Amino acid sequence: MARIGIIGSEGRMGQALARAIEQAGHQCVGGVDRGEDVAKLADGSDALVDFSAPAALKDNLHAAIGAGIPILIGTTGLETTHHEAIDNTARAIPVLQTGNTSLGVNMLAALVRQAASKLGPDWDIEIVEMHHRMKVDAPSGTALLLGEAAAEGRGIDLAANSERGRDGHTGERVEGAIGFAALRGGTVAGDHSVILAGEQERITLSHSAEDRMIFARGAVKGAEWLIGKEAGRYLMFDVLGV
Amino acid sequence: MARIGIIGSEGRMGQALARAIEQAGHQCVGGVDRGEDVAKLADGSDALVDFSAPAALKDNLHAAIGAGIPILIGTTGLETTHHEAIDNTARAIPVLQTGNTSLGVNMLAALVRQAASKLGPDWDIEIVEMHHRMKVDAPSGTALLLGEAAAEGRGIDLAANSERGRDGHTGERVEGAIGFAALRGGTVAGDHSVILAGEQERITLSHSAEDRMIFARGAVKGAEWLIGKEAGRYLMFDVLGV
Amino acid sequence: MARIGIIGSEGRMGQALARAIEQAGHQCVGGVDRGEDVAKLADGSDALVDFSAPAALKDNLHAAIGAGIPILIGTTGLETTHHEAIDNTARAIPVLQTGNTSLGVNMLAALVRQAASKLGPDWDIEIVEMHHRMKVDAPSGTALLLGEAAAEGRGIDLAANSERGRDGHTGERVEGAIGFAALRGGTVAGDHSVILAGEQERITLSHSAEDRMIFARGAVKGAEWLIGKEAGRYLMFDVLGV
Amino acid sequence: MARIGIIGSEGRMGQALARAIEQAGHQCVGGVDRGEDVAKLADGSDALVDFSAPAALKDNLHAAIGAGIPILIGTTGLETTHHEAIDNTARAIPVLQTGNTSLGVNMLAALVRQAASKLGPDWDIEIVEMHHRMKVDAPSGTALLLGEAAAEGRGIDLAANSERGRDGHTGERVEGAIGFAALRGGTVAGDHSVILAGEQERITLSHSAEDRMIFARGAVKGAEWLIGKEAGRYLMFDVLGV
Repeated sequence: MARIGIIGSEGRMGQALARAIEQAGHQCVGGVDRGEDVAKLADGSDALVDFSAPAALKDNLHAAIGAGIPILIGTTGLETTHHEAIDNTARAIPVLQTGNTSLGVNMLAALVRQAASKLGPDWDIEIVEMHHRMKVDAPSGTALLLGEAAAEGRGIDLAANSERGRDGHTGERVEGAIGFAALRGGTVAGDHSVILAGEQERITLSHSAEDRMIFARGAVKGAEWLIGKEAGRYLMFDVLGV
Repeated sequence: MARIGIIGSEGRMGQALARAIEQAGHQCVGGVDRGEDVAKLADGSDALVDFSAPAALKDNLHAAIGAGIPILIGTTGLETTHHEAIDNTARAIPVLQTGNTSLGVNMLAALVRQAASKLGPDWDIEIVEMHHRMKVDAPSGTALLLGEAAAEGRGIDLAANSERGRDGHTGERVEGAIGFAALRGGTVAGDHSVILAGEQERITLSHSAEDRMIFARGAVKGAEWLIGKEAGRYLMFDVLGV
Repeated sequence: MARIGIIGSEGRMGQALARAIEQAGHQCVGGVDRGEDVAKLADGSDALVDFSAPAALKDNLHAAIGAGIPILIGTTGLETTHHEAIDNTARAIPVLQTGNTSLGVNMLAALVRQAASKLGPDWDIEIVEMHHRMKVDAPSGTALLLGEAAAEGRGIDLAANSERGRDGHTGERVEGAIGFAALRGGTVAGDHSVILAGEQERITLSHSAEDRMIFARGAVKGAEWLIGKEAGRYLMFDVLGV
Repeated sequence: MARIGIIGSEGRMGQALARAIEQAGHQCVGGVDRGEDVAKLADGSDALVDFSAPAALKDNLHAAIGAGIPILIGTTGLETTHHEAIDNTARAIPVLQTGNTSLGVNMLAALVRQAASKLGPDWDIEIVEMHHRMKVDAPSGTALLLGEAAAEGRGIDLAANSERGRDGHTGERVEGAIGFAALRGGTVAGDHSVILAGEQERITLSHSAEDRMIFARGAVKGAEWLIGKEAGRYLMFDVLGV
């Protein structure tokens, strides 16, 4: 049983984290929000989980270093200076920063990377995702994460090889392209499929989220895994061992 | 057993038709291509199947009228004058004109129309299709046919309610919109899914073609069904009885 | 806005119903459980929803008749005597009894019935479902409901034409059979697919439940629809108009 | 360009191999059937592909050793003595024996093994496959191959942990079980899905064959890969590098 502290505890994610920490048999030692005393929280915790805001990041890293405990960062919208601060922190303590804490999504990304690497460029890659009707952007961050995994497996640059939003006269498919399509509707929490289409056969690798609670659950697994690790910067891939 | 004559017999579709006619236990009385004597073909046939070219349509209709036999028209690229000629012909003989002769696709379209009609506008409609890497346009003709079926069920205009090629900041989904997405890759003959996404539940209606032979097979079913019918203009929906 | 009374209000379904009634903009006038005064509840309601137990059914029907209001019955485990009581009640008031109150599932069943009726017996029918790991029986009630819809469309008897749990040397598929397969795992609320597999083409009709709340929501839609109807025995199909 | 010899050239697989060899830009140096002179064929080949019969295996291995060329064996129904002969041969020349030569299926198996290994036993594994109506056994050989990959990843014995043909009162799912379900219908060449169902999320890894030609194509890839390799016994996994 570990004592886990939540930074950004009042948001929807903070509440989900509190539930996930308890479900996993750990102790939620409480949380803070912006401006509150994170150093004090760190002192009573075995690990911190930060889903707050980029502006609070440096204070949070500092608190973790001060207490000598690991920190998992799920905050989005990070910029270069934030990543530099994380790199520096990782010399002192274990830090895991990720845009997606779901174990399933990260497992899928690892499988996509491997399949893209082993199957030649004559296997066309397409990524299709579906989300609820309120989502305002496309493709989803997870679709892009899967696209990055595919591009890395292929050894190509994603931005230079993406085909997005096909419509009208598109011409034949360009070899090596990675296609993206976005479906929107209902209350879908998030479905993603990566299709590798070869000569008369197809591999489809999919993830389906039933609830956004999976992100909290994965974050807790990550925090738990970080405890006792050496200083360094980690990914969810390391938690999975892939 | 019926005697079926093929107009446009040398193309890939013409050859598929010859095979389908035999597989169905009918007699393929031969075929003609542009410029050849279609009147003679009609005289020895119980029904004609025309997958040739718009330019030949009027001669073909004339030959069918002359022989007093039905004609099924799968030719694409028809314009207003062609449709008028078909309407006129349908006063004398049974004529079936369609952009898609697959029984399965037409069955699916009928189901989509019904579901769209019975489920309210709070069920968002999305259409996603996948075709081989050589296809040069999007969405597919079949996706648009399914979209028309959905729009008809809803009592709305498809063109005014389509969301195609989502990419970037799209904003929330517009109520009543019909979304289209196109996947391309490998050698996929043609997969189509229509998703109706409601509050915490989803209905998905799909068709998967293993081979383009299904279009020939459906055309033969259509021709067979036309024999003995009253003069009139028919659809594949009539063949299915939907 | 209607006043809806819940019989069986303390169970998980009762609580979901209370939420669904409010979400739909109606008034939940309260509920009773076994032994409590249902006549009083009926007097203050515009419709009753009964998800209690077979033993309570006759009292509940009597209360609805007394108040002259419709009743929707979702109670499972009914026997012949219960159905006779429902038939008698339906001479006086509108009664809707169903094993599945989801609008989506009932819509799917109507589509399956139609497809099975219009496509010949050379389209093989398979039904596959997935549910969470705690489910103790197979196939699911919904899979059987979909099987009944298919059998009705085909004009055959389901029990005499079912192929369940294929394993080992099965021999070739029997023409006209309806196959069932059950997947179990994780926390899946309920996915069902009906596949109609023809010559080189396939139609797949699926329903996916994200949450069991859909049953409460559909029950409220049903109760709402019943208000003001003539006496008679109804189905969810009637609510959908299919 | 390699010279590839086919043993078992008259069967459906032999003819598909001849086509695949040419499509891949190699030379099909001809083939033999049982009783014909395989030593002569071997002398004019850079590699042999054997899809004949177990009874012919030893002669075929002998011919390959004599000519000092690799051999790929896709023959089914092998017994212990055959495997011993293969092991002995593999001391002299490169030998690849496999029950499934599709690159896609083998890639999928590698992904399944990895996912099963990295995701804990709280991710339930289910395998569902669909094949044409003429198939006489269940589950398919490919489904079992995928099950073996999952069991290997889990470090468990497949036979002792299989749940096949669920029907009736099954009780709750047993932790660690690998479930199998078989769908039959139409002309489906072969679809397989492996589902890993966790807490509120699901990963699905699928393969879809459009045509049995993929087995010939994969065999040719395998034969090509074997040329120039060291003596040893190989798998399709080695061809893929997984």
